[in-house]
Amino acid sequence: MRTIDPDKHAAQRRAVLNAAKTCFARYGFHKTSTEAICAEAGTSSGKLFHYFPSKKAIILAVVEDQQQETATYLNELLQREDLSASLLEFLDAILHLSGSREERRLILEIVAEAARDDDVGALNTSGDELLGERLATLLREATARGQAAPVVPPENAVRFLMVLIDGIFSRASVDADFDPAKERASLRRILRGTLGLVGDDADD
Amino acid sequence: MRTIDPDKHAAQRRAVLNAAKTCFARYGFHKTSTEAICAEAGTSSGKLFHYFPSKKAIILAVVEDQQQETATYLNELLQREDLSASLLEFLDAILHLSGSREERRLILEIVAEAARDDDVGALNTSGDELLGERLATLLREATARGQAAPVVPPENAVRFLMVLIDGIFSRASVDADFDPAKERASLRRILRGTLGLVGDDADD
Repeated sequence: MRTIDPDKHAAQRRAVLNAAKTCFARYGFHKTSTEAICAEAGTSSGKLFHYFPSKKAIILAVVEDQQQETATYLNELLQREDLSASLLEFLDAILHLSGSREERRLILEIVAEAARDDDVGALNTSGDELLGERLATLLREATARGQAAPVVPPENAVRFLMVLIDGIFSRASVDADFDPAKERASLRRILRGTLGLVGDDADD
Repeated sequence: MRTIDPDKHAAQRRAVLNAAKTCFARYGFHKTSTEAICAEAGTSSGKLFHYFPSKKAIILAVVEDQQQETATYLNELLQREDLSASLLEFLDAILHLSGSREERRLILEIVAEAARDDDVGALNTSGDELLGERLATLLREATARGQAAPVVPPENAVRFLMVLIDGIFSRASVDADFDPAKERASLRRILRGTLGLVGDDADD
């Protein structure tokens, strides 16, 4: 009887997912063949289809994986003492991601595919809603602790954060002169002012 | 000898452009035929080709037309006494445009085409730069008059405005629950705070 090593299974699945992300960012979803993913992952097509029955299953898993990563990160930020610092660190994560050409392309591919395919669209929408809910929790908790005092109603403050996230990715994609890292100090200041964040601003 | 009536020429050209905008927003650039534009404009293909030698010429003219409209509007805003009110009115224009499904689709089509076609890309980039320059002029002049006092350096404040514009269009496109009009009061307040706008806020 063949036994399954769950660690090995997870590692191989992960290798395929990472290879798929690289290929999707490089060629786009539609121009990526499962052969290209196999070559990038250094695995056989038999192995690949063992983990994912179709290319669409890989696409959905990539989107789910991105969302899982974001959710884990936001949960971790919510565990901190200083949620004002957590909110500013989240901005840093956005600036870091949007500074990566590969991340930007992957996100553009996901958004484009979400418009074309209902399943990807539904998954993307639920991930977007989840992000909004986590940010709302983070902001609500920060406000309850006296670490934040948004100048606008909390639901508008969250939507402003979502506008900011989308806008940063968009500018980084369309404007070659827009360097997210160079906007850090000013965006931190704007976020401090808008969300009424307390604490040391020596780092701004 | 046939004489050309310049007013009639401009009106017919305009009718073709408006019809093209409607069709592009409805079907996308690539799925729009010149026949569909003719039908929408109520004109013949002979007339259409008299004004525009190719579909690409129409696409370029549509992009140029959008940019011209924006430039004219920003020049008008710059003529006002109260540039603090001008900046807030510009936000209103963005919220109004992003609330229109047809406008959003047209802009998405332009951005997608800009990525595929070098000429459309170059035109779109120069329009984007021009928008940034006009906003910089507006903000600089408002600051010189004591009607604005941005909390961040002026070049970052302008890039923040561009982030905001892109983000508002993006949210309106991807999030069915995002209603730009409902964000007006909070975005006005955020803009007032960030740009240090003076004047009556009874309207917020």
